[in-house]
Parts: sequence; structure tokens; C-alpha cells
Amino acid sequence: MEPIFLKACRREKTPYTPIWIMRQAGRYLKEYRAIREKYSFLTMCKTPELILEITKQPVELIGVDAAILFSDILIPAEAMGIKLDFFEGKGPVLSPPVRSEKEVEALRIPEPEEELSFVLEGIKLLRKELPPHIALIGFAGAPFTVASYLVEGSGSKNFAEIKKLMYNQPQLFSSLLEKVTRTTEKYLKAQIRAGAQAVQIFESWAGALSPSDYQKYVLPFSKKLIASLKEERVPIIHFANGASTYLHLIKETEATVYGVDWHIELNVAWEILGEVAIQGNLDPIVLLAEKEVVEEKAKEVLQKAHGKPGHIFNLGHGILPQTPAENAKRLVEVVHQFSQN
Amino acid sequence: MEPIFLKACRREKTPYTPIWIMRQAGRYLKEYRAIREKYSFLTMCKTPELILEITKQPVELIGVDAAILFSDILIPAEAMGIKLDFFEGKGPVLSPPVRSEKEVEALRIPEPEEELSFVLEGIKLLRKELPPHIALIGFAGAPFTVASYLVEGSGSKNFAEIKKLMYNQPQLFSSLLEKVTRTTEKYLKAQIRAGAQAVQIFESWAGALSPSDYQKYVLPFSKKLIASLKEERVPIIHFANGASTYLHLIKETEATVYGVDWHIELNVAWEILGEVAIQGNLDPIVLLAEKEVVEEKAKEVLQKAHGKPGHIFNLGHGILPQTPAENAKRLVEVVHQFSQN
Repeated sequence: MEPIFLKACRREKTPYTPIWIMRQAGRYLKEYRAIREKYSFLTMCKTPELILEITKQPVELIGVDAAILFSDILIPAEAMGIKLDFFEGKGPVLSPPVRSEKEVEALRIPEPEEELSFVLEGIKLLRKELPPHIALIGFAGAPFTVASYLVEGSGSKNFAEIKKLMYNQPQLFSSLLEKVTRTTEKYLKAQIRAGAQAVQIFESWAGALSPSDYQKYVLPFSKKLIASLKEERVPIIHFANGASTYLHLIKETEATVYGVDWHIELNVAWEILGEVAIQGNLDPIVLLAEKEVVEEKAKEVLQKAHGKPGHIFNLGHGILPQTPAENAKRLVEVVHQFSQN
Repeated sequence: MEPIFLKACRREKTPYTPIWIMRQAGRYLKEYRAIREKYSFLTMCKTPELILEITKQPVELIGVDAAILFSDILIPAEAMGIKLDFFEGKGPVLSPPVRSEKEVEALRIPEPEEELSFVLEGIKLLRKELPPHIALIGFAGAPFTVASYLVEGSGSKNFAEIKKLMYNQPQLFSSLLEKVTRTTEKYLKAQIRAGAQAVQIFESWAGALSPSDYQKYVLPFSKKLIASLKEERVPIIHFANGASTYLHLIKETEATVYGVDWHIELNVAWEILGEVAIQGNLDPIVLLAEKEVVEEKAKEVLQKAHGKPGHIFNLGHGILPQTPAENAKRLVEVVHQFSQN
């Protein structure tokens, strides 16, 4: 029994629209918080048995159609030789930030089978334990997004450091992106070989770039990454957050599926992206509203998809920690119920 | 001698492209910081002589073609009966936040000539002292943006409170926007009557809304505000930050000039907006880069405007405090020099 999520990625007809939720294994689940109280975030990311347990939670509790590996996009950055810490309520801190030629040169391209084996172990355990109709999605950050963290040293409001590097030292910027691209390529191939049935590439900081800067400085690396991954013959989902003004450029990455944020209507995005599968795009804040609003707004997204094959329902950004879990569950029910063909 | 800024608003031919910079009277200027050391931010906003001095600074120091009133979009919110504080590095805090029917009802619609007379005095002083070729721009926040501050009680990452109100209690949301709209209308009319030669309406938080939510819940109020202001016969600039995926809806406000953020190419935005004047849209981070980058990127924006009448050069967002003042000055020179007809 093939997961309907995978059929939707190939734009085949499905009995209903599959749904998963970005950051679905997260703090809005009390079962997740219970684990988080016992372990540090990094321990959770590095222990195959915990990866297994956490990844399965939303499948069992919320009823989503795909599981996404529990991990963090900065796990391979750490393996490149950077110190990585997560501080409660502050997000990741990478030290020291990578800004000079020497610091870029010092970055290693890790061997996933050695330095990231805990992720691959987690994937293997998941493929044994997940029901066959539930797809397992692997993931990584896109080259620019990971490079931004490396250069900024943390999340950023204005991305001043990475953009100064990009503008003032375009060659050094390219060397850095090249290294991150190579790391990501090896890492995602290893995930696929370990059992990931699709991979999502998160360009979380696409919104930091103007269309022409994206095209000139960043697109070539994302294109190269995706072209190389295609050898592995699994769907490649590309989610570029904040790129809804330049989806015509995102399309040039030639991914299989495009994740779309909530700043654009789904039908408009689909028209720009053309004959591909599309994933999205309910505003996560809707899940903080009353149940009737959740239902109404979910139906609006489904209507914009016109029941065309190739729609994977998702939020247009990660689910918020303060979301009532019952609203997430209701969303899954509504999507399943109102998309039946 | 009519300011060329005003000619550009009417899409008349000008000898060169006029430029001003959002937040041009701000912390990147050491002369501004010198005043800020002596007075609180609110005192600066409420003292006509300080408004005069601060507003004039970038005209004299940077060479911009228009002065924008030194003030804050929350000044009228305070006059509606809310306590307003600015804390260093934290931004505005409004208390208590407005969330219930009772709290919306308690908001007053202030008489600008009484409760906001310091602003009008500042405008009168400025019109006496500014050279005749320098236009004076007044401003206010758009109804949704001001309402967001009232409901959130501060800046916000996710706008969860205002959007919950919008989704769960659409009637109360509308009553609130109605009151803010009426306040803003009176306030901007008073600014124009005091001498403002154009007004800019800042929809700073447009990016918090999906296109369909903007259209349904917010657009009617912005439309109403702008329609009413048209009686005053001065250019109305509408800047909606983060709305570049729905400029086709922004256009329905029927402003005279549209400010455009840096998430879209200027020529693409202009095509969507049609036969109007356009203001923008250099990425502010460019001004942190080397001089050669500033020149190159400024020329790129000018090229996208194709030398068509009706382009007012600006950044696509406010200038950052860490910007070297000499880069802002160089930008003004480059725009003047390379746009000569």
C-alpha cells in the first residue's frame, strides 16, 4: 500500500488530499513537551530512539499522512565543525560565526555515515516502525539558509552579516555556499539511502533576499543541489519561505513539489509554478482561532486547489507552540473529509 | 519653485529623480543621536522646536529632496487614550492592550487641533523654515497597522492577538478599525491643513496578512481613509510593507503614489500598479556594504524605473541605525547624478 502522500507528489489521483504539518513534532504537543523536559534539544536530535518516538507522535496523535524526521537544519552545520547550542526561547547559537576566508576554509564536509549516523539510524528505525501507508520525509536546510546561520551565528532580523558578505565578497560567499551545498547533497543522499521516501529542502530565509539577489547569488546553488539529488529518484520538496514574490525563480530549481507560504493564494502560486505538485498553505495563526474558523479557512485552501491532483495540504509556515493540539487534529479531519473524491 | 518631489508624485517630468529615505531623521545620524541623548523619544515627538530641528537634519546633512515630519505612527494612538512608552531597544509598549468590546468603546477619537497640536505646530514651523524646493511630507499609520499595535500592545512576531480578534470577532475588529480610521482621517487632514504637502500612510504590518484576509478585513478601511483624504488635494503615498504579493489589492486603495518594499523588482511592481507614481525600493542592507556596491545597486533600481516620470527613489524599508551616514549621502548623490535627463 503506497503512501498517498507519495502519489500526490507525483500528481496522481488520491482518495483525499494528504496533509502533514511543518514542525508537526513540536512543542504544541504535550507528549513532545514531556520528552523535552527530560532531554536537551540536541540530545533529542542525536538519539535514534528519541528521533523515532518524537517523529511518530503527530502520526499517532494528529493523524497526518506523512512523518517528517525529527531533527534540525543545523545538525549538519555542527558536523561541519561549528559549535552549536540551543538556548530556551532564544533559538540556535553557532560559534564562532564564519566570516573570514580562513573560517570558510576550516569548515569540513562531513561524512554522514560517520558524523551524522544518529540521523540515519533514526531513519532506519522509523522505516521499520511506521505503518506502510505513512511516508517518511527527510530534510535539510537550503544552502543559503544554512550559510546564513553560519555567518550570522544565530537567527537574524536583517541578515546584515550574510548580505554584507554576499555584496562585498561575492567569491568568498560562493565558496561558503559551495561547501554547504556539497555537505547538504551528501547528507540528503545518505538520508534517502537510509530510507527517507522524500526530502524537503527548507529555504527558511528566502525572504531575506530580493528576487534579483536570489537569482544572482543563491539560485545556482539550490539548482545544483536539486539536480544532484534527482539521481536518487525520490520526490524533492522545496519550501522557500518569504519567496512568494519570486516563485518564477524558485521554479528554476526544478524540484518535484513546491511548498508555498501563506503570503500568496494557493491558486495564484500554482499558476506561476506550473505543472508540479504543490504543498501548502494555511496561515498557522488560523489554528489559534475557534474551531469554526479552522474549518472555514481550511476549506478555502482546498477550494483554491480545485481538487486537482498534486495538492499536499500543509500550513504556510511551521505550527506555533501555543496551538491547541485539538485544532491541529481537527484540521487533519477537515482536510480528509472535505477533499474526498 | 515647486519641489520636484511633488512633480514626481504627479508623474510630471523632473530634471532628475527625487529621493528621500524612510526613517531619514534617525539614529544613523550622529546629530540625531546628540539630540536623543538629551531628550526622551516622546519629548522629541511632542516639542515643535525639536520636530523642526530633527526633521531638517537629513535635508541639510544628506541632501534629500523631501522632508518627512519627525514623529511616530503611535502618537495618535496615545491621544486615543492609551498609555504609550518607548523603551530603548525594545520599541513601543501600549497599555493596556485593547482586546474587549469595552476597551474598544473606551477609545476616543481625538481632536488633532487640541490633543495633537504639537504636531501641527511642528509642521507650521517647518513650512516657514524649509527651503521652497523641499517638500514636507506628513504621515500616519494605516488603520490595520495602528490597530495591531493597540491589540498586541507592542510590536509582534506573529500578530496572533490581532488576527485572533479578526477571525473570532470580526465585528469587534471592524469597530476598532473604524475608530482608528476616523482618527487617522482627522489627523492627516489636520496635518495637510497645517502645511503638509503630501502624506504617507504606513501599512507597516501588511505582511502579517494573507491577500484574502487583507482584502476581506482591512482593505475597506484603507480605501475609505484614502477616499476621504482626496478632498484635500495633496498626493497620498501608500506604503504597504510586506504586501508585494498582493499589490493588485493595494492598488484598490487608489492612492496617488505607492511605496514598494524591496521584495519585488521595481519594474514588476510598477506593471502591477499601473499608471501611478511609485516610490522605492533599494534594500536598506545595501547601505551597509561598500561604496561601490551602493552605487551599483542604486543604478540597478534606476534602470528598472527606465527613467519614466513618476519615480521617487527611496529604500524599500527604513534606513538601519548602523548605516554609515556617508553611504546615505553617497546614495543621494548617485541617484541625482545618474538620473539626469
